[in-house]
This record gives sequence, structure tokens and C-alpha cells, in this order.
Amino acid sequence: MKLATVRHGGRTTAALVVAGGYQPLPARNLSELLSLPQWKEILKDASSGHCGPDALPASAIELLNPVPNPTKVICCGLNYADHILEMGRELPEYPTLFAKFADTLTDPEAQIPADESMDLDWEAELAVVLGSTLQDATEDEAAAAIAGYTVANDISMRDWQRRTLQWFQGKSFDRTTPLGPVLVTADELDPVAGLEVICTLNGEEVQRGNTKTLVFSAARLLSYISTFTILRPGDVILTGTPGGVGMGMVPPRFLQDGDELLTEIPGIGTLKNRISLRVAATA
Amino acid sequence: MKLATVRHGGRTTAALVVAGGYQPLPARNLSELLSLPQWKEILKDASSGHCGPDALPASAIELLNPVPNPTKVICCGLNYADHILEMGRELPEYPTLFAKFADTLTDPEAQIPADESMDLDWEAELAVVLGSTLQDATEDEAAAAIAGYTVANDISMRDWQRRTLQWFQGKSFDRTTPLGPVLVTADELDPVAGLEVICTLNGEEVQRGNTKTLVFSAARLLSYISTFTILRPGDVILTGTPGGVGMGMVPPRFLQDGDELLTEIPGIGTLKNRISLRVAATA
Repeated sequence: MKLATVRHGGRTTAALVVAGGYQPLPARNLSELLSLPQWKEILKDASSGHCGPDALPASAIELLNPVPNPTKVICCGLNYADHILEMGRELPEYPTLFAKFADTLTDPEAQIPADESMDLDWEAELAVVLGSTLQDATEDEAAAAIAGYTVANDISMRDWQRRTLQWFQGKSFDRTTPLGPVLVTADELDPVAGLEVICTLNGEEVQRGNTKTLVFSAARLLSYISTFTILRPGDVILTGTPGGVGMGMVPPRFLQDGDELLTEIPGIGTLKNRISLRVAATA
Repeated sequence: MKLATVRHGGRTTAALVVAGGYQPLPARNLSELLSLPQWKEILKDASSGHCGPDALPASAIELLNPVPNPTKVICCGLNYADHILEMGRELPEYPTLFAKFADTLTDPEAQIPADESMDLDWEAELAVVLGSTLQDATEDEAAAAIAGYTVANDISMRDWQRRTLQWFQGKSFDRTTPLGPVLVTADELDPVAGLEVICTLNGEEVQRGNTKTLVFSAARLLSYISTFTILRPGDVILTGTPGGVGMGMVPPRFLQDGDELLTEIPGIGTLKNRISLRVAATA
């Protein structure tokens, strides 16, 4: 199943993607839906029904960040084996983790605001969304707790990221990590078997990786994280980006005002984000 | 004014510390109180009254983490000039920042749980609590948005912190950062003029610093952070720790099962935490 959070008129709703459009579900967004203990039953009932007259046509809705209210957004860096090996590094023993906030996330077709002075870079990623609570979990338990997968672009301010040893401040600008366009339930996709992760800048492909080369699988990441902090329904884990970021180019290439960034995982969908740079720097 | 979140019987309440004990305020905790637009008026009314018969005696309450529900907990590393200079380093141009979660926080007299295998270390810190929303703020605006100050100990798992370049995973174990015992309103303390920050381990003083040597003052940290992410009432900023942590000793000294850690800022109060280590490691 494909799920979405959509705006229709002045309100938002969680929705099931059906042939005729978007079938509303009884929650304002997928964060709220996934926090209901009976969310799987709700989906089963909704999907077994036929497309009723209340499905919203695609033309009447706007796709939003599917999970706007995670209590935690945790990201893994340096996770694509092919990219790590091509850089001449050894595969890591532990995942490199850092945090973002719910405020860092934005809609799948949102403009990305920043200052012209900043070195904005792209990072196409597979994102995992939790469907149940997880604590000290095995990999099997973690796999069973995955509600589904979506697409993210961990757009990073490289100059801020490199101001200190800790990446956090370059990764946490409000409304700079688009997420969506839909959440595909875990039964329909297997990142271990392989999902392509593709980033295109103004029509030119800049990243293409495959999740089968992840050093730390989604389930392993969740299991590892759950040993130190509880994960809850609607929480979001970003699994890292493959090679091809602008920082790694010679010379480095950063995003410019008006650039169009497409982030695609076939089987899930495509984020379409335009970069919008202000002239005056604030810091 | 000194404010607290206390447990009394089966429920919790925000409270004003008065001569007779703890005067309940109309909110379940200080996170909830600070999110009320009229929280300053509520405090003014409560403090102008005399100690009524409804003040709870100290013997009837338990002090809790004053702000249990921050949307953001952001920490600054490497911020005490005397410690940085004694280590032979240059003063930093930018603050080193990383994030914790609300789940990382715990009560001012809580036991600190961990596995025996971990290298637990202490970091006594002044914590700042926001009283209003802050975005792209000047230092003056940031200073005006501070609700008050409290004490924190950013207890860190050094082995996990050093597994990768990013400190996050060693800093985000659930219920390992005690906060409290009270929140002292900003009009009563001036960290720029100087507050002592003291850590005592089993009766032996291991850290003593003064906030007048902070490279980045509380207001400057808030102003800087607010350029990239919005801060909200109840959010918590940890301002860094002075010299004297166990990792810096020769040989390094880490916390043992049963150790008693006192973290004190005169004028605010003292955290009293016992370390409780489990024998079996989970990771």
C-alpha cells in the first residue's frame, strides 16, 4: 500500500493511494495514524473496500510531508559500501549517527530556503518510518516494527557542517529535508534485495546507488539505535546517501538559486524541490 | 523565583518554591507552564500572594525533571575558555553543537542506568530554558527569551561517543542526563557575571568552573542556534562543561556502579545521582 498525508481545502488528512486518487483515512496525517494502535486494521479495512466516491482526485490535493511529527529523526552517515570502498576507506564497524528535528523536515515539493552564502549540497536517501515502539530490539523485531519506506534528501549546509567537528548544525536548518511523496508499506519493498536511490540536478543525474549495498540495513540500524533510545511510531530514520554528492566533486559543486533537485526511489516516488536562496546572510 | 516540577501523590504539578514548601501552579509541569502565553503573569500573581495553606511541604513531594517535554535539547561542547586554553587549544570561532532528546533527560535525584561495559563520564553544566519562541534572534532578543537556568549533567558514554566521529550516540542514552532540581528565573542569575559549576564524585571535587569564562554566552548560543532552527518555550540548551572530566585524567577514570555524583550550581541547587550499572552488555 501507498500512504500519504495530503492537504485538501484548508485541512490535512492521512490517505490511502487508490486508483481514483487519495482515499481519506481517519487521522490528520500519517504521524497521527501510525500512533493509533489499530492502524494496520484501519488500512486493511480501507484497502479491502473499493474506491468510494469520497476518494480525492490527485488534482484536488497537495502532497505533504507524510510524517510531520516524529519525536525523533535519526540519520546514518557513511553507509553505502560501494561509495566507502571507492573512497579507499574501510567499512565501518558502527554506524555514524546524528539527529535532526521534526522542524528540519519539509514537503515533497517544497522550495528549500537558504542564504546565498551557504554551500548547499544534496544527499538522496531511503527513509524508514516506524510503525511501533522499539526498545532493545533484535533485528527481527526491528524489521517487524517498520511501517514503511519513503524518500528523503538530507540537504546539507557544508560550510556550517564543517564549522566544527559535529555535523549537526549543517544538517538541522528548518525546512531543508524534504520527505515523501508517499510512504510505501514494508510488505511491498525490500531494501536488502535492492532499491535504486537516484538524485538528479537540473536534469543531470548526480547520484545513483542501491540499498542492497548498505553496510547497515534498515533493521540493523533500528536495532542498534533501540539499544540506547526508544523509538516510537512515526519516528524517522535516514539510512545514508550513496556517492555523487557535490562536496566530493572536483571542484566542489553546490546548489544555486533556482536549481531543481529530483530525488527518486522507483517503487516509492520522486521528491521535486526547487532551491530558493536569499541574498543576505544572517550569520 | 525558583520553580519546580514536583510529584505529589499520584500526580505532578508545576510549583513555585516558597518559604513553606512548593506552591502549586496551574500546569502539570514547567514545560506546560512555559507554553502558556501568560506564564509570567501567573508567576507574578503566585509570588505576590503569601504562602497559602495549599503549599506542599518538602517532605510531601519528589522533585522531578523541571522541563520534561522540550521539543529540542541542544548542547554545546568545548565552551569553557580556561579549560580550552589549558589544553593548549585556540578558542573556537563557532560553537560545537549536538542534539539530545527529551527521552535523554531524567530527574534531579534519579539513578543513572547503564551497562557495566560502558565508559561513563561526568559533565557538569549550566542549562538554559527558553520562555518564548526565538527565530533569527539578536543576542538581546535571545537574552529576553530565557525563562531561567537549571543544572544538568551531560553524562556521556565515552566508548560509544568515540565509536564514530559524531558524538551523538554516546550522548543520547535514555534517562542519563539529570536536570534540575529547580529552574531559577533569569532575573535572579547572571551567568556572564559568573556562576560556579561544581561536580563532586563520592565526596571528591572533580570539576569546578565558572560560567564567566564561557566562550559562547547563553544569549549568544541561543542567538546562533536561532539562525538555523526555531526554539520554543521549554526547549533546553546545555552550555558545555569545564575541565575535570574523567576522560581527561591519567589514567582515564570512569563511573562505577554505586558511585554518587553531585552536580551543583550555587544559587540553583544540586543534582544527586547514583550510578546503577547492569552486568550484561546489550550491544
